[in-house]
Amino acid sequence: MELVTEALNGNRYALARLISRVEDGGADARVSLAALYPHTGQAHIVGVTGAPGTGKSTLVNELTKSLRSQGTTVGVVAVDPSSPFTGGALLGDRVRMRDLAGDPGVFIRSMATRGSLGGLARATADVVKVLDAAGFAVVLVETVGAGQAEVDIARTAHTTIVIEAPGLGDEVQALKAGLMEIADVLVVNKADRPGAAQTARALEMVINRNAVHGTDNNVWRPPILKTIALDGSGIPEVLAAVAAHREYLRTGGAWVERERIRIETELRNVLQQELLDRLLARVGEEQIQAWVARIVAREVDVYTVVQAILGA
Amino acid sequence: MELVTEALNGNRYALARLISRVEDGGADARVSLAALYPHTGQAHIVGVTGAPGTGKSTLVNELTKSLRSQGTTVGVVAVDPSSPFTGGALLGDRVRMRDLAGDPGVFIRSMATRGSLGGLARATADVVKVLDAAGFAVVLVETVGAGQAEVDIARTAHTTIVIEAPGLGDEVQALKAGLMEIADVLVVNKADRPGAAQTARALEMVINRNAVHGTDNNVWRPPILKTIALDGSGIPEVLAAVAAHREYLRTGGAWVERERIRIETELRNVLQQELLDRLLARVGEEQIQAWVARIVAREVDVYTVVQAILGA
Repeated sequence: MELVTEALNGNRYALARLISRVEDGGADARVSLAALYPHTGQAHIVGVTGAPGTGKSTLVNELTKSLRSQGTTVGVVAVDPSSPFTGGALLGDRVRMRDLAGDPGVFIRSMATRGSLGGLARATADVVKVLDAAGFAVVLVETVGAGQAEVDIARTAHTTIVIEAPGLGDEVQALKAGLMEIADVLVVNKADRPGAAQTARALEMVINRNAVHGTDNNVWRPPILKTIALDGSGIPEVLAAVAAHREYLRTGGAWVERERIRIETELRNVLQQELLDRLLARVGEEQIQAWVARIVAREVDVYTVVQAILGA
Repeated sequence: MELVTEALNGNRYALARLISRVEDGGADARVSLAALYPHTGQAHIVGVTGAPGTGKSTLVNELTKSLRSQGTTVGVVAVDPSSPFTGGALLGDRVRMRDLAGDPGVFIRSMATRGSLGGLARATADVVKVLDAAGFAVVLVETVGAGQAEVDIARTAHTTIVIEAPGLGDEVQALKAGLMEIADVLVVNKADRPGAAQTARALEMVINRNAVHGTDNNVWRPPILKTIALDGSGIPEVLAAVAAHREYLRTGGAWVERERIRIETELRNVLQQELLDRLLARVGEEQIQAWVARIVAREVDVYTVVQAILGA
């Protein structure tokens, strides 16, 4: 409990240890999370997502620097698709954050995958809670956004920035459709490259198509902004759009609605994991392996086994 | 049941309907899957994964054409990260498969995401079973491979091909680490582009590092092959490597071990979903929403609620 108190009082070493504890999960993590949970709910959680090659990390870096120059404290959670085998660090990625090191108003954490997807989503949500409780005004959650997992994690933010870049080919363009649905702010990064105007027009077409489907009378129309993250061009405009989206959520009642959806998803995920853990503890590993062997032998199929284990 | 019999007897219309039924899930799907399951276990399931921009779909197309020219039947399951809102079809992607249309030895199916990740993994596994039971000798499962979800789906294959391409930037390179662990065959596509030799060397370095970690005495060393999918260069070599990997799995006993891991993962996933469905049916939507409201109000945290619902 002392660790929670110290972390909430601004002790960075305690904060780092608390985050590690929370990432690891288990009973200690639960006790800590229960203690810090009443302190959450203050941060503006901003998802930043985009396909590989869009310059996402550089943009997150610039957004962080710009927020800091306004005096806003920033937590960054980078969800890292690389494996534990590399130590969980993106090659050179965090190096770009070096100019932020030593600033007590910034805390950066890379999340390595922890075996299961559910595990990563759970750990990410819990680390965001710690940074929120520790008083960081904005928490940026950076995800690759090319797979459903990343989309699901980004969906838990209050505001989601989706980044595009010109010239990434057909497949990347196709990925947009899934991301567009969760985009609150659209950024065409690398806007000095050929094709930037075309990329922006393509995004506008999708936005217009979405607008036709809209039914709310308080509609947020995602702005399309151009940036060159490498030299900081367009960054203030992105932050202004993020702030405007926050206002829109706060005044229109959508803030609480997003919280509700996020928390309901989290509750289902945690319930599901706990149910399985308890079942496996009861059924026993030996029995599970015996069923697996029968399925491998094609004696019985997986759905029939599930009915047999749980009872019809 | 008639539908299953007809699909297994080569009626393509019945096969398409059966796949749709299986994708939708539910009681009908389960009955069909139980009936066809004894017919599975014959196909060589080959995952093909790579980051956006690597030319993955073109390569899958060429592999399919080349397998067909050898007389091998091929099922293709394309796991599509785009949303149901676009109709689930990758823009122009399946169009490239047009030259395969009308060939009864090929069946191509795009999977749209179905809301949840677990749902997509479940549906993909079930569609692969249908194509396996229907007698397709090779089933190619194409995934984007940039997120954990895609890695997890690719992991269920007997043989996994990981595709790279030169010049995709740092972030794409960083993604390799996670994919490299599951790669059985490595392909540097677009090998006529500048930087192809460098990309191959980088892959070799990672492979060498992995080899140090290897402990088996029957070790498969992933070959690194160069292709130009657009003109078919290198495709026969990829197919030869896939066939060699199949031999390695068959003779070394690893085939059954991979089946066991795949089936154990599937059993856990199906158990988890069924447990949650049953719990929610018992607890009731109203009660769940009441708990969510209390968590939103920061009166109680999610882990405490899960203990309260399930009992300590």
